[in-house]
Amino acid sequence: MKFVIQREQLVQAVQDVMKAVSSKTTIPILTGIKINVTEDGVTLTGSNSDISIETFIPKEDEENEYATIYNCGSIVLQAKFFSEIIKKLPEDTVEIEVGEQYNTRINSGHAQFHLNGLDPEEYPRLPEINEKHAIKVPTDLLKHMIRQTVFAVSTQETRPILTGVNWRIENDQLICVATDSHRLALRSTPLEMKDLLPDELKNVVIPGKSLNELSKIIDDNHEPIDIVITENQILFKTKYLLFFSRLLDGNYPDTSRLIPEESKTEVIVNVKEFLQSIDRASLLAREGKNNVVKLTTLSDGRLEITSNTPEIGKVTEHVYTNSIQGDELKISFSAKYMMDALKAIEGSEIKISFTGAMRPFLIRIPEDDTILQLILPVRTY
Amino acid sequence: MKFVIQREQLVQAVQDVMKAVSSKTTIPILTGIKINVTEDGVTLTGSNSDISIETFIPKEDEENEYATIYNCGSIVLQAKFFSEIIKKLPEDTVEIEVGEQYNTRINSGHAQFHLNGLDPEEYPRLPEINEKHAIKVPTDLLKHMIRQTVFAVSTQETRPILTGVNWRIENDQLICVATDSHRLALRSTPLEMKDLLPDELKNVVIPGKSLNELSKIIDDNHEPIDIVITENQILFKTKYLLFFSRLLDGNYPDTSRLIPEESKTEVIVNVKEFLQSIDRASLLAREGKNNVVKLTTLSDGRLEITSNTPEIGKVTEHVYTNSIQGDELKISFSAKYMMDALKAIEGSEIKISFTGAMRPFLIRIPEDDTILQLILPVRTY
Repeated sequence: MKFVIQREQLVQAVQDVMKAVSSKTTIPILTGIKINVTEDGVTLTGSNSDISIETFIPKEDEENEYATIYNCGSIVLQAKFFSEIIKKLPEDTVEIEVGEQYNTRINSGHAQFHLNGLDPEEYPRLPEINEKHAIKVPTDLLKHMIRQTVFAVSTQETRPILTGVNWRIENDQLICVATDSHRLALRSTPLEMKDLLPDELKNVVIPGKSLNELSKIIDDNHEPIDIVITENQILFKTKYLLFFSRLLDGNYPDTSRLIPEESKTEVIVNVKEFLQSIDRASLLAREGKNNVVKLTTLSDGRLEITSNTPEIGKVTEHVYTNSIQGDELKISFSAKYMMDALKAIEGSEIKISFTGAMRPFLIRIPEDDTILQLILPVRTY
Repeated sequence: MKFVIQREQLVQAVQDVMKAVSSKTTIPILTGIKINVTEDGVTLTGSNSDISIETFIPKEDEENEYATIYNCGSIVLQAKFFSEIIKKLPEDTVEIEVGEQYNTRINSGHAQFHLNGLDPEEYPRLPEINEKHAIKVPTDLLKHMIRQTVFAVSTQETRPILTGVNWRIENDQLICVATDSHRLALRSTPLEMKDLLPDELKNVVIPGKSLNELSKIIDDNHEPIDIVITENQILFKTKYLLFFSRLLDGNYPDTSRLIPEESKTEVIVNVKEFLQSIDRASLLAREGKNNVVKLTTLSDGRLEITSNTPEIGKVTEHVYTNSIQGDELKISFSAKYMMDALKAIEGSEIKISFTGAMRPFLIRIPEDDTILQLILPVRTY
């Protein structure tokens, strides 16, 4: 195996597959990155028990030449060293050649490295996925959908299924839901479904961590990304990237019953001002570990947000609303959950729908039912 | 006590004095910031066992009005909360008023905080320093001198005196020296000494941590900063800032004997290229915990830098020099110490003077004797 490659492309590709490489793995070969060189280009692979990432650097595309291939072949190199080395090489191109016993020479200008490689035959093969049932979502939309839900997954392993995001396909809609049982985030989008998916693949749970990593790698463009769901894997596929994640086992709880259908108090308020007030009110609340603030509707159309931590002090905020309709209300909730929800909302205004001080409440964008945030109140005495 | 102040000025001043506030102190009052309001303006004080910082915001200067004073007085507020609060307040001005029992109201727009204050009488007084013997150094030069020496202080408390930087005044020169006994950094500058300091104040040791904090606070301008040395304190003073640090007890070792006066091999090399080669060579060396690289002079006027960690691989770098004079040489040293030294050097070229593989070597700027870096080699077998 011998090739010369543009360093910038190699650095980017290595950075992407590194997202799947863990230094803590108990399988030594998985601390490495697999490099596979064919006549068409160079494929890099990184993998851990949850996700596998494969990126391809073509020899050339319409515009540029990226690599010169002298000999095809494969090698596995220690990810940690390989990624550091290529980042710091002095020239714009890098030559990589595998010699005897997987000894790999890396050359760039006056710098020459020899790394002990590993046998590529030992590297696990990625699953072969039948791509018959692919759904397509624009890449930027996928990123938004992830960002607007994944923060609400549970970080506790007591109910492992809640550490993932539930993806359901219903009535040609993709519905993403995450909940840690104290709050819930939902985002939906219409799908163009040409092929009908089998029913058992229309309700899966994707680990939150996998979605976070995917979100870091994919670009913010409007190109569609192919999504292939199988029984225990999901594959996200762009022109030069394959991202595999395992799925979580088990049934996701039915969350639809949690969402109240009617409301007794409705508030419409500017997101930014409301968020900043909650943020300030939480400054003192944070210390008490519970991070609870109290919201009160005032008869003059303002909201009062307060927090009181006797040993430190108290804070009172007033926020003008666009409208308050329905019953008067006093309710307490976690400032953190509220801030998370508000940051996930895209838009300048939100509608908050309360059904009493002890019932979950909803945060939505007026006239938009593709996004919904639900928060359970906190009982205060 | 009641005043209104520009938030931006207050945030900056609080950020400065926060450098002296530790949340870990065992003296509760020192977790606070003291605010003292006089007819002239507002003074903020933060303090820990090593340093004390006092900043002053004048009521007004030639150009701007910064504060309106309604009532003079003092209060101590929890630094952690106070600093977070003022950073996040909504308006450009802040009103602060102390009520009964040190209860302090902080107002800005629709946000109102009440903080439990502490009795300002309990706050320790800063030392009164006789400013008869002040030396003056331009602020930007002081920052450079700190940066070029402080990294070489010892981080181990086994020899506490080496955790400080030695400042000596000799022949109207200020000489700053730091060493951890494996390497040494020296920077000197001529002083205009009008008043002669007493001899016992011409050789002091300032904690490295204090100098690091000072360096973060002072601006990068050419205005002179007043430096007042007393028996156990040093004071740095600008128009609106007082920075006190304790001095370290004990005698600093005589480092002048460490510095070789002759050399057997002299190399002149470009700083950037040499630094990058050392950096790459150290990538594999770092793993072996010792971080040692080997330098060899080649007969063609190049340097070879190598590192070999058998379980990972090896690296060979070639660096063109401007000149190599004297004996051939093979020498091993810590890549980290070399990189620290090279980063401290300002200039494009350095002269490295060796006196054999087992002797300390010097890094200097050609034709400039105000800066010197010394490194002890590592014995390799």
